[in-house]
Amino acid sequence: MKGLPNFIQYQNGELWLTENERDNLKISYRIRDIIYAEQSPYQHVMILDSYDFGRMLVLDGVVQTTSIDGFIYNEMISHVPLTFHPNPKRVLVIGGGDCGAAREIAKYENVEQIDLVEIDQLVVQVCKDHLQEVSGNLSDPRVRFVYSDGVAFVREAVDTYDVIIVDSSDPVGPAKQLFEFDFYRNLHRALKADGIMVCQSQSPIFHAEVMVETYKSIQRLFPTTLLYTAVVPTYPGGLWSYTLGSKIHEQPANIRSFDKQTRYVNRDILEQCFKVPQFVKELL
Amino acid sequence: MKGLPNFIQYQNGELWLTENERDNLKISYRIRDIIYAEQSPYQHVMILDSYDFGRMLVLDGVVQTTSIDGFIYNEMISHVPLTFHPNPKRVLVIGGGDCGAAREIAKYENVEQIDLVEIDQLVVQVCKDHLQEVSGNLSDPRVRFVYSDGVAFVREAVDTYDVIIVDSSDPVGPAKQLFEFDFYRNLHRALKADGIMVCQSQSPIFHAEVMVETYKSIQRLFPTTLLYTAVVPTYPGGLWSYTLGSKIHEQPANIRSFDKQTRYVNRDILEQCFKVPQFVKELL
Repeated sequence: MKGLPNFIQYQNGELWLTENERDNLKISYRIRDIIYAEQSPYQHVMILDSYDFGRMLVLDGVVQTTSIDGFIYNEMISHVPLTFHPNPKRVLVIGGGDCGAAREIAKYENVEQIDLVEIDQLVVQVCKDHLQEVSGNLSDPRVRFVYSDGVAFVREAVDTYDVIIVDSSDPVGPAKQLFEFDFYRNLHRALKADGIMVCQSQSPIFHAEVMVETYKSIQRLFPTTLLYTAVVPTYPGGLWSYTLGSKIHEQPANIRSFDKQTRYVNRDILEQCFKVPQFVKELL
Repeated sequence: MKGLPNFIQYQNGELWLTENERDNLKISYRIRDIIYAEQSPYQHVMILDSYDFGRMLVLDGVVQTTSIDGFIYNEMISHVPLTFHPNPKRVLVIGGGDCGAAREIAKYENVEQIDLVEIDQLVVQVCKDHLQEVSGNLSDPRVRFVYSDGVAFVREAVDTYDVIIVDSSDPVGPAKQLFEFDFYRNLHRALKADGIMVCQSQSPIFHAEVMVETYKSIQRLFPTTLLYTAVVPTYPGGLWSYTLGSKIHEQPANIRSFDKQTRYVNRDILEQCFKVPQFVKELL
């Protein structure tokens, strides 16, 4: 590695990553070590060892997931749709290169196939090699890795999946199209007649417009549309939203029998996550 | 005001407040204007106008509450105990100088007296003058302001209150004693025979030891001890904990009839807040 990567600064002999995605709020993480840093064809990819959050995946200077709190996001984007659907067999993950969602899905013995479509092969590789607290060094034979554009992939799929999980980064750069209506329409078509989709729909506090627009798009397509929230410490504002669209199932099917080994999710959390704070309710 | 107050820096012609309470994580807020900055006998007190969070109360360089998210913390520390108790008449708030908790308590018509014991009169004054989004410029005649040490105050009170709310800052500086066992024992004595107390018990992620210790202290004194959580965006980690101790009531009494005008709390939130993530459950 030649010199210091972009996004990292020396301050008083210490290494710091400063996220300044939002111009008027900056979060700075003190870094113990730069484990990996390269430019992929799609984005700048780093694995950093931080003091407070352990190892972190950083794309284009923005923290995506960490050893300390990655389990929260990944458990919530996976177990909610998988307990909502009565019998999921084929699951598609769009994005999710950190492998954390696929790792959670692999806890369901009845699931037969997990397609993980990630545009950036380098992200999968570095997370498997250097971020095993999140990826679990996933090697389940049911997981099929497809390194291609998720938008194009779902355009070709019809009546194929029980559950689709859109585990995207923020709606800028490569992930922008994953927040557009055409994409959700193609997702709807890629699902079986009783299929369920989930996407992350950003912060109710800092990205309320994106959240509301995502919810409305999904609501145009799916008779049951539900927003749920979780707390993700490394995302701005802490409170994070997900939106679930279901073609026919109106209620979660398997919460009461939930028995997976998890650190954030439990039966209570699965039940209550759809009950959102008053200001979020009023936004929708 | 002479010169720039401590805690504020100029960077590229912009004003920034950088919180570095935790040495390895820094949150920086871009500031539009310094509304107020003075040293009180107890601490450095500022009201800042920030770009992302509106006006903020900052004590010794640490953000305490903001126009944008102050309602979350204050609604959760107030409405949970007030709906848990079947008929609260006399309420004590220790700390709470931003007046936000007292403002929420004043929404209960049956409450006859609200004693607010804040050590630092300047905090109350600047919040009433410059932070009315939080304080509501509270002028309810049932509120009695007592400017003195909360620790000494509860030592003198016996069998007096239905509900006591400990709305403290972090367990450093003036608030340190508010996290000690002797203080909770005095609180217990200051409560009536069916009284209920609540305190903020810090972050389950960053201050897990403080949270667990607080919970255990309260559990030694109160037959019913319950931890609940909320999301406070300006506190590190986002996820925040509160601990409730109840002398006899085992279940919330008045959730289903909750009818106050609020922005975070609703009946669902009041019901579900006691159901905590798996890793928090395992800590206790």
